[in-house]
Amino acid sequence: MEKLRVGYIGLGGRGYGVLNGIINNMNDIDIVVVCDLKEDRMQKGKKLVEEKYGHDIDGTLNYHDILARKDIDCILIPSSWNAHYKIAIDSMEAGIPAAFEVGPVSSLQECWDLVRTHERTGVHCMALENCCYGRYEMAMYNMIKKGIFGEVVYVGGGYQHDLRGLADSYASGMERSFHTKCRNGELYPTHELGPMLYYLDINRGNRMLSLTATSTKARGLYDYINKNGGKEHPMYGKQINNGDITTTVIKCANGENMVLTHDITLPRGYSRGGRVQGTNGIWMEDGNRLYLDGMNEGHEFADMKNYIDQYDHPLWRKYKEEGIQDAHGGMDTLVLRAFFESVRNHEEPPIDVYDSVCMSVVSCLSEQSIAMGSMPVPIPDFTDGKWVDRKPSPKSPYALDVVYDDLFEGDKFEYFDFVK
Amino acid sequence: MEKLRVGYIGLGGRGYGVLNGIINNMNDIDIVVVCDLKEDRMQKGKKLVEEKYGHDIDGTLNYHDILARKDIDCILIPSSWNAHYKIAIDSMEAGIPAAFEVGPVSSLQECWDLVRTHERTGVHCMALENCCYGRYEMAMYNMIKKGIFGEVVYVGGGYQHDLRGLADSYASGMERSFHTKCRNGELYPTHELGPMLYYLDINRGNRMLSLTATSTKARGLYDYINKNGGKEHPMYGKQINNGDITTTVIKCANGENMVLTHDITLPRGYSRGGRVQGTNGIWMEDGNRLYLDGMNEGHEFADMKNYIDQYDHPLWRKYKEEGIQDAHGGMDTLVLRAFFESVRNHEEPPIDVYDSVCMSVVSCLSEQSIAMGSMPVPIPDFTDGKWVDRKPSPKSPYALDVVYDDLFEGDKFEYFDFVK
Repeated sequence: MEKLRVGYIGLGGRGYGVLNGIINNMNDIDIVVVCDLKEDRMQKGKKLVEEKYGHDIDGTLNYHDILARKDIDCILIPSSWNAHYKIAIDSMEAGIPAAFEVGPVSSLQECWDLVRTHERTGVHCMALENCCYGRYEMAMYNMIKKGIFGEVVYVGGGYQHDLRGLADSYASGMERSFHTKCRNGELYPTHELGPMLYYLDINRGNRMLSLTATSTKARGLYDYINKNGGKEHPMYGKQINNGDITTTVIKCANGENMVLTHDITLPRGYSRGGRVQGTNGIWMEDGNRLYLDGMNEGHEFADMKNYIDQYDHPLWRKYKEEGIQDAHGGMDTLVLRAFFESVRNHEEPPIDVYDSVCMSVVSCLSEQSIAMGSMPVPIPDFTDGKWVDRKPSPKSPYALDVVYDDLFEGDKFEYFDFVK
Repeated sequence: MEKLRVGYIGLGGRGYGVLNGIINNMNDIDIVVVCDLKEDRMQKGKKLVEEKYGHDIDGTLNYHDILARKDIDCILIPSSWNAHYKIAIDSMEAGIPAAFEVGPVSSLQECWDLVRTHERTGVHCMALENCCYGRYEMAMYNMIKKGIFGEVVYVGGGYQHDLRGLADSYASGMERSFHTKCRNGELYPTHELGPMLYYLDINRGNRMLSLTATSTKARGLYDYINKNGGKEHPMYGKQINNGDITTTVIKCANGENMVLTHDITLPRGYSRGGRVQGTNGIWMEDGNRLYLDGMNEGHEFADMKNYIDQYDHPLWRKYKEEGIQDAHGGMDTLVLRAFFESVRNHEEPPIDVYDSVCMSVVSCLSEQSIAMGSMPVPIPDFTDGKWVDRKPSPKSPYALDVVYDDLFEGDKFEYFDFVK
């Protein structure tokens, strides 16, 4: 099998980490050229790849140099939040499929530009939302599509992660610290909203209609700064706009609600706060609790730990057999494999352009709602009506909207050969 | 000590249960007269009391008969949701302090009538919100007032209770089944919102400003009816208006958010979903998890079960020593004692008229928001501005807005004598 020739754009912390994972775990991937705006970062990434590969690769400070080449199969874009979409658009214009790391969009127009460029060029792009391939999220697809929760009416989730250290990186230009300082909204919706799209068949028979968002005051970083340096702290005296907790409630065409919680500037343990609830039962990540109708007379929750093996998605079951790899519990590898497979097969990626913009657009829409006192704001139909009869994803072990048990039976499954 | 002479109005399921608790556990209370619109219920309650007391008591089908008497110290109103407020108003007009069971109001005017009648007559009323005296809720008052969570920015909670059986009681006229069938909103807000008022000093330096509410579709009862009789079920074919899950987000004057979840028509385990979060840490009822800043390096949640004894409210600590009584884990007794003590001392009850309407009003306001597509709706200031400088409650072991450790030291504490 020929190797996929990959251009790699963006070598900050996330970019360097993902690159390291790829060159060490994926023998069918050939990083041909790396790029970063900053010379030192670019050189560091280039050196990392060259030491592993044992030969020189190209490097550039201008991503257009990569897009101008004719020998690149696809582009990976783990660049800054504000650059993801622009680079992906340029990549599609150049005829090269692109995958970008997740982050908040800043305007509706960014989303429309991504959609229209894909539609005009026929070239695909994909948001690398790793949580779409988390073990519990995948078990939920499996359970939902098999009807175990009955008719699902409510899904909840959050990005709940103590990231107060972003204040320490303000002076050195860490991106999240600027967004947190300046913007007020659900600034990181994709980890929870990504999986929810597939729970509820969004863009394939369902869509998001509108949302309201509400933020608390911003006090967590002030407290953190006072505790960690006070007047000597690099962020001391700066006004912080993003409320500590933002709650976003989304209404869907088929009557479901999605509830998101953004919570990154207070002390806490990590939780994506997953919740799936239907006419036949509920799973909650907090406490990892499951209840299915009639499970017991006392309506006592069961411990999902005792059920996860039984309900694991077939992809994950196979993954466990093959050996889980990479950071983030293995889901980074799966989301990258999903993209690479779609490139190799010249197929629509499982997270397509419509899903990619839907999971990101909530960031700028939540800002609008908050700016207007939590007014409901409409969510555009980026499919221009196609959602009412769009078919499920092409048959692929990485498809998120259907469960193809048969793909994983016996020897027919060969996809994890890529991983080795 | 003279016994308090009590008129008792409302002998449905809840009314009968509470009456039973009082006559068996409270020797300082004298149920003088009972009332229900229905003769059989009234007679059943009358007989219960007479068998315990060993002498006859009065009974009536018309509560005005009770209010016309001059020998009644206070009124208890565990009547239907739609009648609570009217009876309490009439009781204050008659000069008799009244306590009513909780439930949703149907209009803003009901709340204003309650407030204005109290202000004009000087007679008190109190919502019997037992969860204000729950063990964990009281531990939260204790922790918050002592600064253990830092500055609190977010509180969450829910009434999450599988009550699908209400469909079976539709034909026999169960009240909640009618409200669930007809209304669409947060129809039972007080269990979670009651404690939140005291977490955030509402009406005493803070107030609720506005809310948005959003409901899912209503599918849980249809599914339940189909599983339990189908066309033979007494509720078959009836349209059900209340969405299975209603999410309400409230903004407070001091920048906090309260998030409520109403969830009674889907299969699940019970949870009030409590969450208290501030600049120094978080408690979550789901999983019963605590994290305080610096608790450990890995930001791992601790099990609150290991901390609850340490953080118990002094009232609860004393209660444990004296012996916890009654159903609902003891909180029914505490909320009744709080009311009776205020009557005996001719003092403002710890849950005063402003708190009582604030915890109920969210029901009709959430309906308004949902009716208008989740538009934000303003929450009235029932104190007419007095909230900006209202003082804490009078010193009482039952006060919810302050923690008087010294009241519970040594022999000074005598309040639980009432309970015996």
